[in-house]
Amino acid sequence: MTVKDVPIGSKEVIVAAGPCAIESEEQLMTAAKAVKEYGGKLLRGGAFKPRTSPYAFQGLGIEGLKLLKKAGEAFGLVTVTEVVDQHDLDAVAEHADILQIGARNMQNYPLLIAVGKSKKPVVLKRGSSATIDEWLLAAEYILAQGNNNVILCERGVHPLDRNHTRYTLDLSSVPVVKTLSHLPVIVDPSHACGNWRYVSAMSKAAVAAGADGLIMEIHPCPSEALCDGAQALNLDLYAKLMGELRAIAVAVGRSLA
Amino acid sequence: MTVKDVPIGSKEVIVAAGPCAIESEEQLMTAAKAVKEYGGKLLRGGAFKPRTSPYAFQGLGIEGLKLLKKAGEAFGLVTVTEVVDQHDLDAVAEHADILQIGARNMQNYPLLIAVGKSKKPVVLKRGSSATIDEWLLAAEYILAQGNNNVILCERGVHPLDRNHTRYTLDLSSVPVVKTLSHLPVIVDPSHACGNWRYVSAMSKAAVAAGADGLIMEIHPCPSEALCDGAQALNLDLYAKLMGELRAIAVAVGRSLA
Amino acid sequence: MTVKDVPIGSKEVIVAAGPCAIESEEQLMTAAKAVKEYGGKLLRGGAFKPRTSPYAFQGLGIEGLKLLKKAGEAFGLVTVTEVVDQHDLDAVAEHADILQIGARNMQNYPLLIAVGKSKKPVVLKRGSSATIDEWLLAAEYILAQGNNNVILCERGVHPLDRNHTRYTLDLSSVPVVKTLSHLPVIVDPSHACGNWRYVSAMSKAAVAAGADGLIMEIHPCPSEALCDGAQALNLDLYAKLMGELRAIAVAVGRSLA
Amino acid sequence: MTVKDVPIGSKEVIVAAGPCAIESEEQLMTAAKAVKEYGGKLLRGGAFKPRTSPYAFQGLGIEGLKLLKKAGEAFGLVTVTEVVDQHDLDAVAEHADILQIGARNMQNYPLLIAVGKSKKPVVLKRGSSATIDEWLLAAEYILAQGNNNVILCERGVHPLDRNHTRYTLDLSSVPVVKTLSHLPVIVDPSHACGNWRYVSAMSKAAVAAGADGLIMEIHPCPSEALCDGAQALNLDLYAKLMGELRAIAVAVGRSLA
Repeated sequence: MTVKDVPIGSKEVIVAAGPCAIESEEQLMTAAKAVKEYGGKLLRGGAFKPRTSPYAFQGLGIEGLKLLKKAGEAFGLVTVTEVVDQHDLDAVAEHADILQIGARNMQNYPLLIAVGKSKKPVVLKRGSSATIDEWLLAAEYILAQGNNNVILCERGVHPLDRNHTRYTLDLSSVPVVKTLSHLPVIVDPSHACGNWRYVSAMSKAAVAAGADGLIMEIHPCPSEALCDGAQALNLDLYAKLMGELRAIAVAVGRSLA
Repeated sequence: MTVKDVPIGSKEVIVAAGPCAIESEEQLMTAAKAVKEYGGKLLRGGAFKPRTSPYAFQGLGIEGLKLLKKAGEAFGLVTVTEVVDQHDLDAVAEHADILQIGARNMQNYPLLIAVGKSKKPVVLKRGSSATIDEWLLAAEYILAQGNNNVILCERGVHPLDRNHTRYTLDLSSVPVVKTLSHLPVIVDPSHACGNWRYVSAMSKAAVAAGADGLIMEIHPCPSEALCDGAQALNLDLYAKLMGELRAIAVAVGRSLA
Repeated sequence: MTVKDVPIGSKEVIVAAGPCAIESEEQLMTAAKAVKEYGGKLLRGGAFKPRTSPYAFQGLGIEGLKLLKKAGEAFGLVTVTEVVDQHDLDAVAEHADILQIGARNMQNYPLLIAVGKSKKPVVLKRGSSATIDEWLLAAEYILAQGNNNVILCERGVHPLDRNHTRYTLDLSSVPVVKTLSHLPVIVDPSHACGNWRYVSAMSKAAVAAGADGLIMEIHPCPSEALCDGAQALNLDLYAKLMGELRAIAVAVGRSLA
Repeated sequence: MTVKDVPIGSKEVIVAAGPCAIESEEQLMTAAKAVKEYGGKLLRGGAFKPRTSPYAFQGLGIEGLKLLKKAGEAFGLVTVTEVVDQHDLDAVAEHADILQIGARNMQNYPLLIAVGKSKKPVVLKRGSSATIDEWLLAAEYILAQGNNNVILCERGVHPLDRNHTRYTLDLSSVPVVKTLSHLPVIVDPSHACGNWRYVSAMSKAAVAAGADGLIMEIHPCPSEALCDGAQALNLDLYAKLMGELRAIAVAVGRSLA
C-alpha cells in the first residue's frame, strides 16, 4: 500500500511519530519538524482522545484536526490520527491521510464497518486482551467492506504486572501475523512501555523482529504533556533512536529513510 | 432503582434470563414463558449481536426488538437487550426497558455518553481485561450525563486458559465493588463459563458472594441455537436452578421471587 | 478419604483454619480454640514459610511443628502444614496429619514424588498460573507413587490487576474439576483475596460452587501478624462466617459441623 | 562474570545452543559440533527434565550429564544444564560449568539456597507468571548465599492465548532489568515461542533489545526429538540465524563471536 508516495509494508521500514495529543500549533509544529528532520515519514497526533476517565483531557477535537493537516502539509508528512466516534469520521477522513482505530475500539464493529466503507487507509490497533485470531477477524470487518488498506498495529497486551510497564509488548505477534496474513504490521512501543526509558530498546527489537514500521510518541517537552508524557521521547532521544533504528533496519536487510 | 416495579439492588435477588440471540417468535415466547414461570423478572435477548467474525449471525435487528417487546408485554417481564451502535439507540430504547452495553464496548465512550443522555437504565458489562477501576470509570461516563440507573455486570475476565471455560468469572469483583460503589452489581455466568455444565454452580456462587442478580442464557433447544448454544441452559435446568438459587438467597438473608 | 475420623470429600463441608504462620504457643492455642469452638475440623499453621523475599520471616521451623502437634492434640483437630523442602518431609510428616504443597511448588516434581512415597494425605495447591490440566497432572506425580490421598486446593490465579485482590479466585475450577476427577477440591479464599474484607463473601461463594471445604487464615490479632495479616480474619469474623457457611452448606444439600 | 574464558554480561553477546534433552552421544555431538562451528560459546542440553506429565520422557539423568561433559570438552564449549533436585546438585555441578534453574523452580527456595551455596554460575529462568520484582527477589536467594554468578533468563510469561505461541516473550524485561540490576540477562526464545518458525525473529529482537545472550534449542533432526521438537531449530536454520544475529549485534554496538 502506498499513501502519498510513502510505501507501507515494503522493504522500507516507516516511522510515525508525534505527540500523544495535539495541544497547540507550536507543540505540533515543533514535533513535526523533528519528525521530518530525522527521517520519520508519518506524523501522528491525537485530536479525539479516548480516556479512561471522563474527567481527563479529551483532546482539541476539530481544532486539533486542522492543526494536524496544517503540520502535515507544512513538512510533507503523511498524517495519522485516531477516530473514536462514527460521527467524527467524515471530519477525520477529510483532515488526515490515515485513520487509526484504538485498542479500546478494536471490536467496535459499527466503527470498523464505517471505516471500511470510507476506503481510507487505517491503522488497526490490537485490543489489550485480543488474541491474534480476534485481531485478524476485526480486520475482516474492514476488509469485508472493500477497504484493503489495513495496517495492523501491535501495542501490547494485558501485562503480568504494571509495576514497570503498562502493557506487555507481544513482539511475537509480528512473525506470527507474517505467517497468517498479507497485511503490514507495525508496532507502538510507547503505549506498551508506558515509560520512555524502555521505548528505544523495544523500538529496536520491533524492527529486528520484522515489523514494517513503528508508531511512537515524541514531545518537545514531555514533562508538560497533557496526556501520557511519561512515555514520550523528547526530540533528542528521538533523533538518536532514528539513527540506531537505521542500523538495525540495514542489519535485517531493510532500509529506513 | 426500580424498573417497572422490579427493584434492582434491593434485598431481592433478581434474575434475567432468555436466549443469547432472539431467533424467532416461537423461540422467544417459549423462553419467556419459562422465565416467568420459574421466578425470573427480566427477559434478556439479543437483537443486535456483536460477533467476533463479520461472517457470523449478527442478530435479527429491529425485527428482534419488536419480538422482545411483544414477549415482555405478554408475560409481564422487564426486558433487557444490548445496544451496539449509537444509531440504533433510539430504536432499542423504544422497545426495551433496560439497555445493555457489552464487554467489547465498555470503553466505547461515545456510546456510553449517548446511553447516559438517554436516561434509560443500563447494564454495563465489565470488559474482559478491564480492571475494576477502569470499569467504575466507564460507569462514570454514563453517570456524568445524569443517568444514575447503572447496573454493573461481572461477566468474566481474560482466562488463564480456554480449555475448560471461555473466561474466568471474577466473583471477587462483587464484594470489591460493594466496598467502592453504590451501584448494584449482577453476574453473567453464561458468557464466563461458555459451557452450560458450569453455569449452575457459578450462579449459586454469585448469589452467595452477594450479587444483586444474575443474567443468564437459556434456550428451548440449546443444540439448535444460532449463537452460543453451548453455554445455554435448557428450560428444565433453568427451572431446577431457580429453586436452588432461592435456597441460597435465603441463606444469605435475601429473597428471590 | 478420612483423616482421623474427619471425612474429606463427603457430604460434609470441612473447614481448616488457623494462622498463616505459627508465631507462638499462645497465638496458636488461641486460634485453635476458636477453630474448634465454631466448627472447624482442621487446624492450619505454617512452620516453614516460603517467602518471596529471603529477608522476610521464614517461620519457626521444627519448633512450629511441635506447637502445631500440641495444639492439634489439645483440641482434637486434624493438622495441616506446608512442606517446602524434601529434607524436612520426615519431620513434617511426623508432626502433622496432612501435608500441604504450596502454589510455588506445584511443579516441584522431586517434592511431589517424595510426598507421594510418604503416603500421607496431601493438599495440593494450584499454581498461580497453572491451567487445570497442569494441576491435575501435578496431582498425577503424587498418585503415580501410590498415594491416593490427594486434596486439590484452588487458591487463585494470576490476577488482572492487584489493586484490590492479590489473585483472582477461579471458583469455576471447582465444578470443572468435579467433571474431570474423583479428587476432593477445597478452596483457599485468604491468599486469593489478600484482604480480609472479601474473605467471607468468597468463602460462601466457594461452598455454593460445590467446594468440599475451605482452608482459611484466622489470627487472634491480625494487625500484629508476622505474615499476611491483611488477609486474616479475626476470631469474631471467623465465628460469624462459620454460621453463615452452615446455612449455605444446607442450602446446597450438604452439612457443616 | 567469566566462565572458562567466556565473558558473560560483557560487550560480547553470547549464544548457548543445544538440544532440549540429551538423547544420545551422536545427537549431542552433532549438535555440539554445529554450536561451535557457527559461533556458539555454550552448549545446553537437559539431562534431568521436569515434565508436566509424570508419564513423559524425564531425561537420561547421570548418563546425560556424562555425555554433556564429554561434548563440552570435545568442542571447547562451556556447558549449561538444569538442576531439578537438590539431591542431584553435586552430580550436576561436577559435570557442568553452569547450572540452570528452570521456570517451574524459580521459587523453589531450598534449591535456590543450595545452588547459592555451591558458588557455581547459575542461569535463573523467570517463572511463567513471575513479576520482575519476584524474579529479582528469587535471585536474592542465591546472591544472599554469597554466589554472585547469577545470570537472569527471560523465557516468556503466561500467554494471552496459546493458539500460536506457548508463552509471551516479554522482551521489555530486558531493558527493565538493566535499570534495576547489575546482573546479566539472557533470553530463551525457544520455550517462549514453542514453534521454531518464530525463534529467529525473536532471537534477533532479543539482541536488539539489549540482551546479553541467548539460550536456544537446536536439534539435528527436530521431528525425531524426544522433547519439544516443535520449537527446535535444525542446524541449517541455526547457522543462518547466527549470521543474522552477528549483524544485529554490530548494529547495537556489540559483537558476537
